[in-house]
Amino acid sequence: MTATPAYDPNNIFAKILRGELPAHKVYEDEKAIAFLDIMPRCPGHTLVIPKAPARNILDIAPDDLAHVAKVAKKVAVAAKAAFAADGVTVQQFNEEAGGQVVFHLHIHVIPRHAGEAMKPPASAMEKPEVLAAHAERLRSALAG
Amino acid sequence: MTATPAYDPNNIFAKILRGELPAHKVYEDEKAIAFLDIMPRCPGHTLVIPKAPARNILDIAPDDLAHVAKVAKKVAVAAKAAFAADGVTVQQFNEEAGGQVVFHLHIHVIPRHAGEAMKPPASAMEKPEVLAAHAERLRSALAG
Repeated sequence: MTATPAYDPNNIFAKILRGELPAHKVYEDEKAIAFLDIMPRCPGHTLVIPKAPARNILDIAPDDLAHVAKVAKKVAVAAKAAFAADGVTVQQFNEEAGGQVVFHLHIHVIPRHAGEAMKPPASAMEKPEVLAAHAERLRSALAG
Repeated sequence: MTATPAYDPNNIFAKILRGELPAHKVYEDEKAIAFLDIMPRCPGHTLVIPKAPARNILDIAPDDLAHVAKVAKKVAVAAKAAFAADGVTVQQFNEEAGGQVVFHLHIHVIPRHAGEAMKPPASAMEKPEVLAAHAERLRSALAG
């Protein structure tokens, strides 16, 4: 067993939270944001993250985790409608052995269609105009 | 897009909640239970479910989801210690297209070791004595 390292404030999601990197944001409240994964495993693949610094499920404050779970539900319901999906796959990876690549807690919310497999993780960068259109569709569903 | 069907009270997790089917239970509180998956993708693979009837993330009450998320965190921390794991993979599937097989909301908490892949879903039934030993290890970690 390896110990959980400390939070690194230079991870790319921390930079998105500080406005140092752009993102296709679809949701924001006082404690969380949601934005599109730029390498979606399916169209509409969204990441929900807490604003508080947390490496993953092992160190996050329970109330912050509860909040991002509630936001993930909102996103799941909206994404199913926005992308006319048949289902939703939710994933959350912890430490490298658990599949984690960016070390700020994030919940993957992936709209799914029957018979369509997910692409492998990080397989292809989506075009910015496609991401912008998908983000708009999801924002509308979240507002509706 | 397919509509979300109603909750079916005859699913196997509802039967576990009613005591009609056995389970290797590792945690219980007033709103949730956790028990071992009998076809673990890795040793210690645990399922966290709400006591309230909820088909999946699309219909669960937000506060019930928040609660099972907090329990999943407790289980993740305990499983990492109990199984000397390097990481934890968390998954939650919604509707058949999203990977769901049993239609009572459940969060998979899977302790992971570096370099060891997960078995495919539902690939092999674990021996009852192995599950009993793993449940005991996890209960001790959760109590500790």
